[in-house]
Amino acid sequence: MSKPMGLLEAARAFSNGTLDRKEYIDACTKRADEVDPWLKAFTYRVPSEKLSIADEGPLAGIPVGVKDIIATAGILTTNGSKIYADNVPDTDAEVVSRIKKLGGTIFAKTVTTEFAWRSPGPTVNPWNPEHTPGGSSSGSAASVAAGIVPLALGTQTLGSVVRPGAFCGVVGFKPTFGSIPLGGVHPLAQSLDHVGYFTRSIDDAAYAFGLLSDVGVEASEIDDLANGIDTGVRPKIAVLTPSFAGDMSDEQKAAFENAIEALRTAGAHVEPIDLPASYWEGVKVCEMILAAEAAAIHAENVERYADKTSPQLKDLVAQGAAISAPKYIAALRMQTELREQLPKYLSGFDAALTVPATGEAPKGLTYTGDTHFCALWTLLGVPALSMPVARSANGLPLAIQLVGGFGEDQHLLQTAKWVEQNLTNPFAEA
Amino acid sequence: MSKPMGLLEAARAFSNGTLDRKEYIDACTKRADEVDPWLKAFTYRVPSEKLSIADEGPLAGIPVGVKDIIATAGILTTNGSKIYADNVPDTDAEVVSRIKKLGGTIFAKTVTTEFAWRSPGPTVNPWNPEHTPGGSSSGSAASVAAGIVPLALGTQTLGSVVRPGAFCGVVGFKPTFGSIPLGGVHPLAQSLDHVGYFTRSIDDAAYAFGLLSDVGVEASEIDDLANGIDTGVRPKIAVLTPSFAGDMSDEQKAAFENAIEALRTAGAHVEPIDLPASYWEGVKVCEMILAAEAAAIHAENVERYADKTSPQLKDLVAQGAAISAPKYIAALRMQTELREQLPKYLSGFDAALTVPATGEAPKGLTYTGDTHFCALWTLLGVPALSMPVARSANGLPLAIQLVGGFGEDQHLLQTAKWVEQNLTNPFAEA
Repeated sequence: MSKPMGLLEAARAFSNGTLDRKEYIDACTKRADEVDPWLKAFTYRVPSEKLSIADEGPLAGIPVGVKDIIATAGILTTNGSKIYADNVPDTDAEVVSRIKKLGGTIFAKTVTTEFAWRSPGPTVNPWNPEHTPGGSSSGSAASVAAGIVPLALGTQTLGSVVRPGAFCGVVGFKPTFGSIPLGGVHPLAQSLDHVGYFTRSIDDAAYAFGLLSDVGVEASEIDDLANGIDTGVRPKIAVLTPSFAGDMSDEQKAAFENAIEALRTAGAHVEPIDLPASYWEGVKVCEMILAAEAAAIHAENVERYADKTSPQLKDLVAQGAAISAPKYIAALRMQTELREQLPKYLSGFDAALTVPATGEAPKGLTYTGDTHFCALWTLLGVPALSMPVARSANGLPLAIQLVGGFGEDQHLLQTAKWVEQNLTNPFAEA
Repeated sequence: MSKPMGLLEAARAFSNGTLDRKEYIDACTKRADEVDPWLKAFTYRVPSEKLSIADEGPLAGIPVGVKDIIATAGILTTNGSKIYADNVPDTDAEVVSRIKKLGGTIFAKTVTTEFAWRSPGPTVNPWNPEHTPGGSSSGSAASVAAGIVPLALGTQTLGSVVRPGAFCGVVGFKPTFGSIPLGGVHPLAQSLDHVGYFTRSIDDAAYAFGLLSDVGVEASEIDDLANGIDTGVRPKIAVLTPSFAGDMSDEQKAAFENAIEALRTAGAHVEPIDLPASYWEGVKVCEMILAAEAAAIHAENVERYADKTSPQLKDLVAQGAAISAPKYIAALRMQTELREQLPKYLSGFDAALTVPATGEAPKGLTYTGDTHFCALWTLLGVPALSMPVARSANGLPLAIQLVGGFGEDQHLLQTAKWVEQNLTNPFAEA
């Protein structure tokens, strides 16, 4: 099974005339035909004859997977819920509309957990089908990792992009809160919901960020973007070890330590720093905000559709209902304070290096994995990404997580590219 | 007891050279010396020798009363609370700093209920000292009504400007949410807190709005502002009768009906319209948001300072703690929806005419009056003002309330001026 090219490589090949857009999309379709019967990454694939392929635009010829919690006009959008089993939106989500304007092809809707919470879909991990791909953006992470599409959209409210990115061995990038518009994305918790995406390299992630985010690039800069981003030079990296680092597997610990050592050897300034304990306690703050806001959104679903909602969603609504309004308001205030104070600790660093997950993707498909290692960065709204750096004994990816300053997405991506060039990605050519 | 001139009249007299700024402030001081021993509007008066009187600026020579929940640098700011009995802030609230830059003189701090909630201070109603002046901006309303200062700042979170304005027979104006900055104002509920103020006429209110709000006026327009605003011509006025109109006294009902009749006779288009029931239920939404947010702010005060907090504040914190986070979030969503839908009902009208209170100020000083008739407009964040139109058998003011569209403060003030010119204010020359 050979994988079609990644995002930027394909975009360049279209420009150079060395690759035909339709042939590329046909190759992606073929790859999907081969792989998806067991991968189960898609809830719906647009039939080949209905795939619209643009001749122009920076995403022309690029097939994009769209997490099924993101509205697509005229295309089934189930939100991973039986309640929405027949839901066909009239209008595209803002980010989908942006992709279409850039020439991109909506290729398929990808499996999400129910309403981006915990009840999983059928997707398996592309490196070992007995293991979860992670969630909630399960199908998007898996389909990029399996080389079906070079770009797929996800969302993250605790750890739903970075974690499946880590479990599937791809770049899972959650940009700064609000930088990709949320309009038309079914909400889980409005103070935490982010749109993110998966690609196979940092250059690809940077290309997509320039195109999809509100930060954006000028039309005149799009060609430059296709050259790939500049690499930062010998970055200054803060190493952040969470207070719950004991939850890491030995393999994850070794992968993290080896990455630190390799970066130091390559010439980076790598310095362990401590965040105040209130930051790691922020994980609980994040979970409280999520439960409260999700309960406000889903209380009615759980009540009206007892037979169409999962025990996980019912639990979440019950948890949220038990939180008092003043406690929720205090949690939001804590979110603001932690966000405002963060630059004090990270100033002078190009990025923070930390861990995206407890280790390899857990075995089984009922549990999508622990979100603790991702939640703080979601709470803070700062850009964060996963990057594969090792392979576990079970053949599964182990990753690191890089975190940047609020709104400093492009600088984080530059630093990440330096890191990528100086570490080995055992899944790059698999 | 003669009252010194009102705001705009004084500003013009300073410009014309017919009135000396120091003489005017001395007259205000004399008036305070005469009246305040029984009115009890002030928590603190800046000693005469320390009053700084500017030579220039649109508020030069204007003594301003500042509600004691608004920070004043170097001047005691108790927030109406025993906890803050000795609190002297280092910096001015934003609105105070704005007043100083415009040349205004901080004349006194005015009595507020405890933290702008319900536990009242000693201020009495200037027209009948056995009655409340209303609250929470008690001292500001009373001191303007008694002619001590021509301008005094208040805040409104349910009905704390418009209601005391009505009870005291002055213009109490609560501009659009956020149009006067809240920095340095002790919060009660951040989704509802407004800065407002009291003046003796609509022209005065319009002059102050041009100067104090973020909308503001260009420096070149300040002279125009001093000419008074243009009157709208034969306005179209929507009459809104709340679902709880049965709570009005007969006198208030008559005052409201007479005002409607007089405006119609004067040539206004006056048309009763119905708002959906969800609007009047918005009063409960407003109270819920207030309790939840106030509980988050005051839970610690109530716990740490049981002996320095009132039963009213303790009740509020308990009420707020009993609200679940999802209910609070749903209330905020309802606030947004009601706000977004309002123009649908009020489009084509210059203002809405409604009632500011159940009737005259209640007898006694322990209860500052019912807030139902004001709360909806606070929830919606639209500009609202009280204007005296009749005198009760007890010699107390009865008022109407005019409400405008969100951000349409200046248009509301124009319409209000037309209304003022066509109704009789029995307290104008008292």
